Amino acid sequence: MVQVTRSQLYPDVAPLGLHRVLEPCGVLPQAARQLDARAAIWPDEVRVAVQRLNLDAASFRQLSEATGGDPAALRAAVLEIVASRGKMQNPVTGSGGMLTGVVEEVGPCSPLGLTPGDRIATLVSLSLTPLVISDGLARWDGRSEQVPCAGHAILFGRSIAAVLPDDLPAELALAVLDVCGAPALTSRVVVASARRRPAGPGPVVAILGAAGKSGSLSAAAARQAGASKVIGVVPHEAEAALLRAAGAGSEPGGPLADEIVIADARDPVAVSAAVGRAGGPADVTVVCVDVPGCEGGAILATADGGTVIFFSMATSFSAAALGAEGMAADVTMLVGNGYVPGHAELALDLIRSQPGVRALFARRIGPEE
Amino acid sequence: MVQVTRSQLYPDVAPLGLHRVLEPCGVLPQAARQLDARAAIWPDEVRVAVQRLNLDAASFRQLSEATGGDPAALRAAVLEIVASRGKMQNPVTGSGGMLTGVVEEVGPCSPLGLTPGDRIATLVSLSLTPLVISDGLARWDGRSEQVPCAGHAILFGRSIAAVLPDDLPAELALAVLDVCGAPALTSRVVVASARRRPAGPGPVVAILGAAGKSGSLSAAAARQAGASKVIGVVPHEAEAALLRAAGAGSEPGGPLADEIVIADARDPVAVSAAVGRAGGPADVTVVCVDVPGCEGGAILATADGGTVIFFSMATSFSAAALGAEGMAADVTMLVGNGYVPGHAELALDLIRSQPGVRALFARRIGPEE
Repeated sequence: MVQVTRSQLYPDVAPLGLHRVLEPCGVLPQAARQLDARAAIWPDEVRVAVQRLNLDAASFRQLSEATGGDPAALRAAVLEIVASRGKMQNPVTGSGGMLTGVVEEVGPCSPLGLTPGDRIATLVSLSLTPLVISDGLARWDGRSEQVPCAGHAILFGRSIAAVLPDDLPAELALAVLDVCGAPALTSRVVVASARRRPAGPGPVVAILGAAGKSGSLSAAAARQAGASKVIGVVPHEAEAALLRAAGAGSEPGGPLADEIVIADARDPVAVSAAVGRAGGPADVTVVCVDVPGCEGGAILATADGGTVIFFSMATSFSAAALGAEGMAADVTMLVGNGYVPGHAELALDLIRSQPGVRALFARRIGPEE
Repeated sequence: MVQVTRSQLYPDVAPLGLHRVLEPCGVLPQAARQLDARAAIWPDEVRVAVQRLNLDAASFRQLSEATGGDPAALRAAVLEIVASRGKMQNPVTGSGGMLTGVVEEVGPCSPLGLTPGDRIATLVSLSLTPLVISDGLARWDGRSEQVPCAGHAILFGRSIAAVLPDDLPAELALAVLDVCGAPALTSRVVVASARRRPAGPGPVVAILGAAGKSGSLSAAAARQAGASKVIGVVPHEAEAALLRAAGAGSEPGGPLADEIVIADARDPVAVSAAVGRAGGPADVTVVCVDVPGCEGGAILATADGGTVIFFSMATSFSAAALGAEGMAADVTMLVGNGYVPGHAELALDLIRSQPGVRALFARRIGPEE
């Protein structure tokens, strides 16, 4: 697998794709209401023949609920968004997702190092990727956020893409790459926390939503980065059983979570009490639960001087800021940046080395091809 | 001035005020739709006779716009919110503000160290403070976010309050305490950034909205914490002139901003280019502009490995997270936590020692009493 890194053309802004913004003028593609998705490429761009969209979980849930889950209505909703915006950005959640496809044409000035025929996944959000759908999404049954799709997409000079690895099924690689920012940032924060206490044991890490995709990868990353204890918080017994099975003695380095506790992540008292009983408060708390209202519990479960990393797109900025202030909680709160250098390799290596995590992913995406 | 610190009763949750939440059950007071604001106190509570509300800037702007600035309509809007919610939390912005008043009754188990008769400011948001207004806001002209008010408010065991200092006018102290989290967190981040480069010069710090209240205090805090250069970004020449005058040679430690640049904070290309020309990209960027859409510019103006601190309540979590990912920007993004230990003292000391900052505050709140 080749990780393609961004060009370092600061302060040149062409690689950001501003030339593709139709309105409003001057904003970045992510903030644009509409992009120009024409197939003809600029010198530093790459055009990709799309094979599959992977909608962001929050976006897929919102669209499913809004359409009552009717496949035809779901298809129509996605087609309407892409046709009117030139990109797949859910107007309600603001989020997008990612895609896989085959490189079709590479501009002479593209810094991405791609070659026509490469099979790639985009690691920048669909919310800023120019996209045209040409098959009416006829092959999508509307039951999953993985959307078989034909059409084209455009990568900018400063976009990030990963060539898909040969040794993993494409669907698995895509699911891993979709959330690869979470384990990478978790790893970085846990390493920094461990460094601040060179004499003592490593930090205690709580993962809200530990049996999910980003949650299980983050748990494995936290352990690898030096956590002394990983506390997995899950909403009910079925998820607890999944997580328990995933760590049933077979993992190099021990089980995925040292302690598994059941609590509703939206109930701050329940979460903090459960994490407290399991050995908390946590030095690092990672929020991987894609429902609103988890800010208070995460803050309350975290020790003074600790760090909360919010990866959920359902996070409310003001609820986090005012919640911490309101509880006089001296915690560092990070916006989960989806980009950390080396994030794709780190996540793919975890899925290769941790059979328990791989088994959890298999449960989420169906049997491997 | 006495800084009252929070009780350390984890995991006991009574001091969080959950017993005052009427609905929905089990959430924290900040997340509640309605609080019980009755005057009778619980053993660990404090009741305050309210003198003045200081509405959050984003909330005041939203209410002013929604009512067309009509004073009677503004009064009615605030009264309706407080009557129906039991707290002054703007349902649109989610934000509140703070208040000043005189301590009326102290419960026998209160850990706050207050005495009846103390004149205090609350350092927790109005969005979680039980409040009853008894004078119909008759003395408020609706022109300013400072609202003369009679009524009562409740402090919980884990609330934070500061006894107002004797040596500063009350209105000035209130305005400083309202934003005191910003300079404290800026200071901490700049110190940490300077430590990571012990050999080289201190970090370059960009302040978006440097002529405002939180912005000017953050600029002064950044300089004091070891910034090698402070770049002040302001929206137009009038603000630039204010900032220039504030640093006209009289400040201990040099001018408030080494470079003053004019750019629309919502225009990412303009902001990053201006900061770049002034000596950027910044190692630390502080967002103190209370309008939506400033995430992209802040990220783009920040160097790889740098930090963005978002203090604006208008910040969009998903725009920050997806924006950084979309530009492959390896920046740490912090949710501006309004609570940092020692924040009140740090801000009041800055206003005492920096005449330029004090002059800027005087311009914002009118001549000192």
